[in-house]
Amino acid sequence: MTKQTGIARAHTNIALIKYWGKRDKELFLPMNSSLSLTLDAFYTDTKVVFDPELTADEFYLNGMLQKEKEMLKISRFLDLFCEYIGERAFARVESLNFVPTAAGLASSASAFAALALATATALDLDLSPATLSTLARRGSGSSTRSLFGGFVEWDMGTGSEDSMAHPIDDADWDIGMVVLAVNTGPKKIASREGMDHTVATSPFYSAWVDTAKQDLADIKVAIASRDFEKLGQITEHNGMKMHATTLSANPPFTYWSADSLVAQEAVRQVREESGLSAYMTMDAGPNVKVLCRASQMDELVEGLSAVFPREKIITSKPGPAAYVLSEKDWQTSQVAFEKGL
Amino acid sequence: MTKQTGIARAHTNIALIKYWGKRDKELFLPMNSSLSLTLDAFYTDTKVVFDPELTADEFYLNGMLQKEKEMLKISRFLDLFCEYIGERAFARVESLNFVPTAAGLASSASAFAALALATATALDLDLSPATLSTLARRGSGSSTRSLFGGFVEWDMGTGSEDSMAHPIDDADWDIGMVVLAVNTGPKKIASREGMDHTVATSPFYSAWVDTAKQDLADIKVAIASRDFEKLGQITEHNGMKMHATTLSANPPFTYWSADSLVAQEAVRQVREESGLSAYMTMDAGPNVKVLCRASQMDELVEGLSAVFPREKIITSKPGPAAYVLSEKDWQTSQVAFEKGL
Repeated sequence: MTKQTGIARAHTNIALIKYWGKRDKELFLPMNSSLSLTLDAFYTDTKVVFDPELTADEFYLNGMLQKEKEMLKISRFLDLFCEYIGERAFARVESLNFVPTAAGLASSASAFAALALATATALDLDLSPATLSTLARRGSGSSTRSLFGGFVEWDMGTGSEDSMAHPIDDADWDIGMVVLAVNTGPKKIASREGMDHTVATSPFYSAWVDTAKQDLADIKVAIASRDFEKLGQITEHNGMKMHATTLSANPPFTYWSADSLVAQEAVRQVREESGLSAYMTMDAGPNVKVLCRASQMDELVEGLSAVFPREKIITSKPGPAAYVLSEKDWQTSQVAFEKGL
Repeated sequence: MTKQTGIARAHTNIALIKYWGKRDKELFLPMNSSLSLTLDAFYTDTKVVFDPELTADEFYLNGMLQKEKEMLKISRFLDLFCEYIGERAFARVESLNFVPTAAGLASSASAFAALALATATALDLDLSPATLSTLARRGSGSSTRSLFGGFVEWDMGTGSEDSMAHPIDDADWDIGMVVLAVNTGPKKIASREGMDHTVATSPFYSAWVDTAKQDLADIKVAIASRDFEKLGQITEHNGMKMHATTLSANPPFTYWSADSLVAQEAVRQVREESGLSAYMTMDAGPNVKVLCRASQMDELVEGLSAVFPREKIITSKPGPAAYVLSEKDWQTSQVAFEKGL
């Protein structure tokens, strides 16, 4: 094999109907289908170079060589792609996460989507976005959705081959998202650990799965009819239900910190006082994300700034599907990264 | 009727297996049986004087004449007792709440229990504590448990006549409670409103009711065998499940404020670092209550004080059943109230 390079960008996504629990931990098969909004503001750029001179994979995240644990995860992921060429070539993987540190947003969704596309490009594999999405899933469940832009559904599928995402709508109808970044507390529970514990111990879990199915059907109707209020209400209800399952686990736990409540109260106050449309969702961490009208984002941020630190409020429009970058794009990306966000 | 007086004291109680939802809103019949710990530190003293010269009921709370809305609730409650004597006499009701303002603890449980005993005493009614407990229930559900001391079970019953509390255990085996008082935010949702909305809209509600039954059976075994860790684990799991039902309501809501999370994190930190036994529970408000060993209360408070304001930490031992006070006791109580808590 000669030296082969692939570079790609994938954006992060925020689930509006949550993925919360696996039916197969090895294959990342979810208990329920989910739906997300891809965000323009946060993304990962990844360059993969298969190099015959390498005797092992190397993984640099934000310019720093990663330790064995992270390396192993990347290597296992590369295995999936090397199966297609019938040869295990070694690669140097370089990733740049364009997610503001303050946001504390999980980057695994954009990371494995970018890595999937970059690797397939490097190996000249002729894989459809749908197939790439099943492969990305094996790195991190939610990354299956980051291959696509706008509103994206991850169909739980019947097995590994058809548990994949597909775009639903480009979200180009005045949709925006505001992130209230909350500092993570001292001990974070990994989302994997949290969902496994919830599935195993929460008496509310089966009702979660049942109603998530209905929520998904309902939100697709809301998107198809561009009913923003309905979209928002379902989003907020579904997200809070997910967090309700963590409180009902045994022993109970929560991803919320004190500042999460400060953020929630800020959103409630602003929407009550201003009448702006704003609906909250949260993931396996303390941040609060607010689905809103893109055209009202400035006004919303202004209102929130009165009760929440302005520098911790980040806005985003819907993001595009993952795409291939040129070597020149990569150089631009490196310069941008070094300049800081 | 001649002038007749009754005076009584009842203590507040904290549910370990929560009462959360009514099957009959008029009669305060609960969806599930519950279990509580009566607290020594918080109580209500109430004096009822049936006076032939009165042309209407009067209600003074902490020395202040109350408005029509509060008066009406008291009058309807007195109606239930006057039925026994076949005559509607009017009464002057004076209540003193010995609940520190900072604690922000609901006082309706101790209030209606004290009022029930004082009224029955004034009217010379020969009612068993069990029957008094069914009457107290008509003022406020949780007050049915405040007639008794220690660990108390409220049996949901089959109807109004047998939905009553009974003592389970005197809790005289090294049991204590620490209250982390949290200031209430701007808009409080009344517990009645919150539970009604939850029953009507939460997809997790039926699982709540089902598992609360099992929790009750399990906690009674833990109490009978004096298994403190089991008692605490069931308490924390049940309480958080109740709060999970509010997050799963549609639209979702929470009784937690940012400082509730500060208090929760303080408890988690202290128990992890010190190894002290401490289990949390919360009610329809922002306060955090911690079930602990009475013998470890000082050490627990010391640990908590490092991360939570000391002046907002209140300790209590288990409290006794409601009892009748003499006129002299009442005078002492008034002096104590005027001196401040």
